[in-house]
Amino acid sequence: MPEDQTTQIYGPIAKDLALVEELLESVKSVDISALQKMLEHALESRGKRLRPALVLLAGTFGNYDLNKLVPLGTAIELLHTASLVHDDVIDSAENRRGKPTANSLFDNALTVLLGDFLFANAAEMVTRTGSLKVTRLFSLTLMKMTSGELDQDTAAFDVGRDVQSYLSRIGGKTASLMENATEGGAVLAGCSNEGVEALRSYGYNLGMAFQIVDDILDFEGTEEVMGKPVGSDLREGTITLPTLLYLQSANPENVVKKFLETEQERQSYLQEAVFEITNSPALLESQKIAEDYVERAREALKILPENDSKTKLEKLGDYVLQRNN
Amino acid sequence: MPEDQTTQIYGPIAKDLALVEELLESVKSVDISALQKMLEHALESRGKRLRPALVLLAGTFGNYDLNKLVPLGTAIELLHTASLVHDDVIDSAENRRGKPTANSLFDNALTVLLGDFLFANAAEMVTRTGSLKVTRLFSLTLMKMTSGELDQDTAAFDVGRDVQSYLSRIGGKTASLMENATEGGAVLAGCSNEGVEALRSYGYNLGMAFQIVDDILDFEGTEEVMGKPVGSDLREGTITLPTLLYLQSANPENVVKKFLETEQERQSYLQEAVFEITNSPALLESQKIAEDYVERAREALKILPENDSKTKLEKLGDYVLQRNN
Repeated sequence: MPEDQTTQIYGPIAKDLALVEELLESVKSVDISALQKMLEHALESRGKRLRPALVLLAGTFGNYDLNKLVPLGTAIELLHTASLVHDDVIDSAENRRGKPTANSLFDNALTVLLGDFLFANAAEMVTRTGSLKVTRLFSLTLMKMTSGELDQDTAAFDVGRDVQSYLSRIGGKTASLMENATEGGAVLAGCSNEGVEALRSYGYNLGMAFQIVDDILDFEGTEEVMGKPVGSDLREGTITLPTLLYLQSANPENVVKKFLETEQERQSYLQEAVFEITNSPALLESQKIAEDYVERAREALKILPENDSKTKLEKLGDYVLQRNN
Repeated sequence: MPEDQTTQIYGPIAKDLALVEELLESVKSVDISALQKMLEHALESRGKRLRPALVLLAGTFGNYDLNKLVPLGTAIELLHTASLVHDDVIDSAENRRGKPTANSLFDNALTVLLGDFLFANAAEMVTRTGSLKVTRLFSLTLMKMTSGELDQDTAAFDVGRDVQSYLSRIGGKTASLMENATEGGAVLAGCSNEGVEALRSYGYNLGMAFQIVDDILDFEGTEEVMGKPVGSDLREGTITLPTLLYLQSANPENVVKKFLETEQERQSYLQEAVFEITNSPALLESQKIAEDYVERAREALKILPENDSKTKLEKLGDYVLQRNN
């Protein structure tokens, strides 16, 4: 993303994201040429680097020490990338955001190891913060993320799960890393306990909204913009918030339930199931819940002093709610 | 393994391995029942727990603090288990290359996540040592292990690699973790720099011997004792020391080269290739090199005071050289 665009979203810290980019670049320098190729692909700088930006923004509320904040931002981006790489192996996904996944380009074996290598680099990078507390927080986040993924995988096609179970799963899978970004940034900057708690809560709630919007976009986005087929989650049996809300109020004989419960010829029901959910009130209801989380995120910031970073964090809520890919 | 047997091998620290077992047990307590089942299987206490024993033995050369040593031993065992779990995915991914089935895919998916969960727990466990230095050492070890595995995977069937490349690969894949066990134990116990270096060198050299013996056993062990078919490494294209030494002195038209270089009907040459290597001097030459590493491991211990732990570490060399599975 061009720097003027990131400056608009992230404000003054945007320029420091170049330091994260430099550290990510250093991770790509390896002797094994096949690995180097995979790393170039996985770490390509097309993303918005939202998570490192959250670390830096949180860091501005205390002693803004780039020697600590940049390694944490980089570690978090590496962990994020590692989890995407393994997710793609798990889903055997062919495209992510319109570009071919590592596992579709390279073989599964190498891709599992690519993910492990990124995890290893993330674990090394976080120790460069010099903080055992933040390093420990980071490893606990990895546990939450993996548990969330495992829960999602084992709950596939299980119509017995409720909204609470969904929220707890995305809390682990997605929100925990954004929570780690803002909490870790605040701890490294030496913020007060209340400051750390405010920023932690902000990151968690923003992350919840982020994942809910992601789950809505899986229904209402277009394949062209999303870079993957509409209804991908449902196809794999992942029951997200729109599906849950649809099931709560639909006729017991609905086609979504039929899709989830039939084992034979299941995929023949998919298109109709996606259509039913998309044309029900479930997407709007889900969006409302995402808005509630953004509201809570903003609420959490109240105790922090007014400054440019706070304004940017508040505006990030709109960005999360309005994004279309 | 019964405690009297471990006492014979590990001496006085053997009883403290029960504390490692307890911590491993605590990792198995999870809410997701599918995960719990997989963890029970992966962490079953049938092994000799060699790596945790190395941590504890190294720790006896300084301040033997179980509150630090037991978490490190547990973290190292978790990391070891995680890497075995992912190796298994990688091998079975190769077996079914080109023809993935939905069922095997689902199983693989959970297994990738099981490995990630074990990595996460290992990363969390090592922070319980309270030492950022040891935590950092641990993450560097994970990098070396993954690089070694990646190197092995990308070098499959490549007859252009030499003995040096093999030694560097097993140094990363296997020896680095034993090195981490003894070095980390010594650091936690507050040993002098020379003491740490002596124990680090011991662990590294013992690990090198361990892997070379493993690679010999892949040829001369029986399927019954080893639990896998003889010649498994060669079948997958992994060129280990016996194969390298055989190729160095064999006729250029030999069947092993034919096996490695032919892409069509390759497996029809496997049995003959294994027979040729097994009946060449290569296994004995490999054993000699393993003995040299054990010698270096013992040499490293010389500067340490004479005590029961030192005797046990010396004897572990014989155990590594003489094991048959």
